[in-house]
Amino acid sequence: MGQGRRLRGARQVRGRPGVGIGAINANVFQDDDYKLGSVTNPDPAVRRKATDHLLECVDIMDATGSRDLKLWFSDGTNYPGQDSIRARQDRLAEALREVYDRLGDHQRMLLEYKLFEPAFYTTDVPDWGTSYAHCIELGPKATVCIDTGHHAPGTNIEFIVAFLLRAGKLGAFDFNSRFYADDDLMVGAADPFQLFRIMHEIVSADALGEDAGIAFMLDQCHNIEPKIPAIIRSVMNVQEATAKALLVDADALAAAQRAGDVLGANAALMDAYNTDVRPLLREVREEMGLDPDPMAAYARSGYAEKIVAERVGGEQAGWGA
Amino acid sequence: MGQGRRLRGARQVRGRPGVGIGAINANVFQDDDYKLGSVTNPDPAVRRKATDHLLECVDIMDATGSRDLKLWFSDGTNYPGQDSIRARQDRLAEALREVYDRLGDHQRMLLEYKLFEPAFYTTDVPDWGTSYAHCIELGPKATVCIDTGHHAPGTNIEFIVAFLLRAGKLGAFDFNSRFYADDDLMVGAADPFQLFRIMHEIVSADALGEDAGIAFMLDQCHNIEPKIPAIIRSVMNVQEATAKALLVDADALAAAQRAGDVLGANAALMDAYNTDVRPLLREVREEMGLDPDPMAAYARSGYAEKIVAERVGGEQAGWGA
Amino acid sequence: MGQGRRLRGARQVRGRPGVGIGAINANVFQDDDYKLGSVTNPDPAVRRKATDHLLECVDIMDATGSRDLKLWFSDGTNYPGQDSIRARQDRLAEALREVYDRLGDHQRMLLEYKLFEPAFYTTDVPDWGTSYAHCIELGPKATVCIDTGHHAPGTNIEFIVAFLLRAGKLGAFDFNSRFYADDDLMVGAADPFQLFRIMHEIVSADALGEDAGIAFMLDQCHNIEPKIPAIIRSVMNVQEATAKALLVDADALAAAQRAGDVLGANAALMDAYNTDVRPLLREVREEMGLDPDPMAAYARSGYAEKIVAERVGGEQAGWGA
Amino acid sequence: MGQGRRLRGARQVRGRPGVGIGAINANVFQDDDYKLGSVTNPDPAVRRKATDHLLECVDIMDATGSRDLKLWFSDGTNYPGQDSIRARQDRLAEALREVYDRLGDHQRMLLEYKLFEPAFYTTDVPDWGTSYAHCIELGPKATVCIDTGHHAPGTNIEFIVAFLLRAGKLGAFDFNSRFYADDDLMVGAADPFQLFRIMHEIVSADALGEDAGIAFMLDQCHNIEPKIPAIIRSVMNVQEATAKALLVDADALAAAQRAGDVLGANAALMDAYNTDVRPLLREVREEMGLDPDPMAAYARSGYAEKIVAERVGGEQAGWGA
Repeated sequence: MGQGRRLRGARQVRGRPGVGIGAINANVFQDDDYKLGSVTNPDPAVRRKATDHLLECVDIMDATGSRDLKLWFSDGTNYPGQDSIRARQDRLAEALREVYDRLGDHQRMLLEYKLFEPAFYTTDVPDWGTSYAHCIELGPKATVCIDTGHHAPGTNIEFIVAFLLRAGKLGAFDFNSRFYADDDLMVGAADPFQLFRIMHEIVSADALGEDAGIAFMLDQCHNIEPKIPAIIRSVMNVQEATAKALLVDADALAAAQRAGDVLGANAALMDAYNTDVRPLLREVREEMGLDPDPMAAYARSGYAEKIVAERVGGEQAGWGA
Repeated sequence: MGQGRRLRGARQVRGRPGVGIGAINANVFQDDDYKLGSVTNPDPAVRRKATDHLLECVDIMDATGSRDLKLWFSDGTNYPGQDSIRARQDRLAEALREVYDRLGDHQRMLLEYKLFEPAFYTTDVPDWGTSYAHCIELGPKATVCIDTGHHAPGTNIEFIVAFLLRAGKLGAFDFNSRFYADDDLMVGAADPFQLFRIMHEIVSADALGEDAGIAFMLDQCHNIEPKIPAIIRSVMNVQEATAKALLVDADALAAAQRAGDVLGANAALMDAYNTDVRPLLREVREEMGLDPDPMAAYARSGYAEKIVAERVGGEQAGWGA
Repeated sequence: MGQGRRLRGARQVRGRPGVGIGAINANVFQDDDYKLGSVTNPDPAVRRKATDHLLECVDIMDATGSRDLKLWFSDGTNYPGQDSIRARQDRLAEALREVYDRLGDHQRMLLEYKLFEPAFYTTDVPDWGTSYAHCIELGPKATVCIDTGHHAPGTNIEFIVAFLLRAGKLGAFDFNSRFYADDDLMVGAADPFQLFRIMHEIVSADALGEDAGIAFMLDQCHNIEPKIPAIIRSVMNVQEATAKALLVDADALAAAQRAGDVLGANAALMDAYNTDVRPLLREVREEMGLDPDPMAAYARSGYAEKIVAERVGGEQAGWGA
Repeated sequence: MGQGRRLRGARQVRGRPGVGIGAINANVFQDDDYKLGSVTNPDPAVRRKATDHLLECVDIMDATGSRDLKLWFSDGTNYPGQDSIRARQDRLAEALREVYDRLGDHQRMLLEYKLFEPAFYTTDVPDWGTSYAHCIELGPKATVCIDTGHHAPGTNIEFIVAFLLRAGKLGAFDFNSRFYADDDLMVGAADPFQLFRIMHEIVSADALGEDAGIAFMLDQCHNIEPKIPAIIRSVMNVQEATAKALLVDADALAAAQRAGDVLGANAALMDAYNTDVRPLLREVREEMGLDPDPMAAYARSGYAEKIVAERVGGEQAGWGA
């Protein structure tokens, strides 16, 4: 996604549905001071300011009862030689340690990674390995946050999911989808099969419930489509992928895997994926007293027309920026 | 690069040094009308408005004596199904035809391509093949513009350069460099060997001079570095790559190629690349009555301090957007 | 996929089911003479030999009543400077012209492209643009063959499909799927949604039937799974994607596209994709007098056991090579 | 590179110049038993066989005085569902632990990673993060081996180098270069500036000497060029990159970095890179009593002609496989 949009989205306090505790999203520093980095800036005064800002976020977490401090650093460099890669890791580790030690007993740190953008040469936390290594060093309250749009082309995301679940270090998802880079399209819009494979790893590890402590979040940017329906569609896409993952015949799959039956094991997974779970989800919604068709319910509500009438002169996120 | 920065750069009239005739850069439409496309918009009224805007650009070219109409369309779609890929090509062809037919005898159309961004699913002119196909259809005044940052990972840019030169369809370069996507770093900063290989194709085809009609432009974004020195450095990088390309022993290279001497041919190219041409370029500048060290000359000029003093309160492009 | 496997698959005469006319697949030259290229080799004697081989293929086409000469050239270079990119295009054009002129009235040339491998620096036909440009130059009997595994990361294949259909230059598909490079997995195994989008372009252009002249082929490599069931599964995957594409409500889609209803248009496409078409396909097979479950029918046939018994000592393609 | 070639290169015992102690390269299992994996195979009997093979390698290390056991596993899966990603990690960890515990006091394990190939869906050690995590778990004798061709597009390799050096976990390099995937071209042939940046990290961390324990190896495949000159050229390319890295003015670089002088810091690095170090290296060779021009010395030696005469009927690696 464009840097402009991302930068504008800085430091929001979001409710995290499904967990019930708010998270502090201290992930961007817009100040011009941070042009060469926040906690990894070569200037100690800037680093101090950035770390103090993070400590202040923990104060706000205390005051609001938030559990999660989600950190995404836009820090990095644009040109070879611009700064020492290693020194920046030292500075990063130092800041993370100070903030980690400030966390309360029931608070967590979620460390997000991103391949590139806004930094175009090195990013200080570019991949899951870097995030994982810092989390291991910090301690049990630090876990990795996976944004599904933040990987190099060809990266197998469900492998990372499975690896982190095995290590007890998967803390959260920022869901979205992409064809190219960090496109921030609606989750499930670009590769619904990938979303299913990710949810299959979650289900296989019995990590869907609240006990597993994984925060499932959306991190998207609705440039050309209306926002609320886009979010409804995104949630439905995750529900459908999850329902399909729950339909996998785990015994049949495991038996085929044990037997080395490549096509049989693949077919066990594909059978679930190829099932149309929409009728089932409509039933579940009705049983819960909800409208079986959320998109139609929203359209009938007249809310879209109401906010358009109220916000004459406003505009979509990102367009015209 | 970020969408925000690009969108802000819309419709500039730039001088083109080395050619001596200005170009109209009608490549972006910021208006909210263009959210779903400009000349490829599903709405005929929007298409009319966009095409009229392009025709107006040709009027300005007439008035200013500009030769080149450089077109980069941000048009595309974000979601599968959003619009008909084929219908959008029809609309694109129709608009290009109308504008092409309006060009005067000594005017040209340069059609730029870009893999993605701001569109994240389809882009209407995503690759050189699409641009080339439209140019062939349009006629001799239409040629391709290569932006070195607009390709899929792994694309061999010098192959495209060689192919278009052979076909007489290379009109211009937008130079910059990148490690990831359209990063718009200083040209030669990320992969100086690639820049040399591109210039080697230009030199091999004897297309460096004004007669060849190739416009060499910079299209960069200086987010964290001072702009004027960054441009000086970029020009020096192109000069060094060009000087090295001119140093290639063409006879030795051709002989090794004919003989199937893989290592010998590669060595002939590398010998030139590995030469330090900076002393030579300093001499050339002195012979031309210029300062041999352009960066030092700029530093001595005091211009940087002067504009900082004058522009208190201003800021770097892109940062804080 | 590995070069080894590919090279071993050279020069097969394959029947093309669904078209009823065999194709000559003259796509690889294994001879050590061709180490530096076949029709683009710097040595004129090697080029002569390669072109003669292609002309001989047309003789065989005459004798066997084949319609299609499918050409995939492994030609390219491994090192910068190794050969002249431009001269190789000249040689390619010359050979293609000679072979094209030799084709009979009802014969066609299908020119396949591939980003890389076995050549690792330049490939002489690396992308659809190169193939298209040569086909345009050659004439109406030359069309492009798309191998779905031969693109750079991030390439939008359905865009290429739509573009070539619009231009009347899409001749054939080599279907397979991949997560990384030219992996040659079963079609539909890696990204079933992409396969659906491709078939949607085919259906939208009314190009599914024999009149459209598109040859739908599989080009896969079954390294670890049994071959015949893998091919059955691949055909079923294409059938499912096609059935879904045929289920798209074209009127609703077009109306939403015209109205600029991004989410509505996307939903029209996704409704078809999310439908479980397997029951429908079972019915269709029964109506045609076929077994509704091809995998089970094959398993019951005992053929797999029979060939295993007969081929003791043989092995899977590619493994252990 | 092609799978065929790689598989043929299995289990070589190589001398490691510069360290003086041989390494066991137990990285490939060609046996058909290993089709679904070696140490991660779903079949416990196959895993036992694979682990026993590794233990036998350590026996050979004892007998030959080798220090390093370099492990590259081709293990992985080709299709979603084929096997449990997580169970395969458990099996991998178990085998590594058994082999690690068998190592003597002065022996090491080098764990190599690779994005893909020959596995095309999941690879059991696909990235540095996975290798690092296992090495941390195993203990101080386990370190990461970086093959420069084994990364996803866009991966910043020098970042990984710097990170692992900081963590004391960089054990070895397999040098080669690539434009696309694991092309295995001569190191420095595709991106000499990248090689320089890697060596700059090595020099900056004072890790060039024997004490640092980093094994610098070549892992290339010479398909079309003569092997011995290709290796000479590769060594010269590493020497040139190292010489340039040693020429970096570390004080000037650090000062510019501290001052946040982006262009100045970049220029300090580029000044060294742009220097022609070949005359210097010729002098160094002469001082050491070596021929200043290794390529010419080899040509004069007549060795190439001698082996050609002796090996009539043989062929280049990989071609025609």
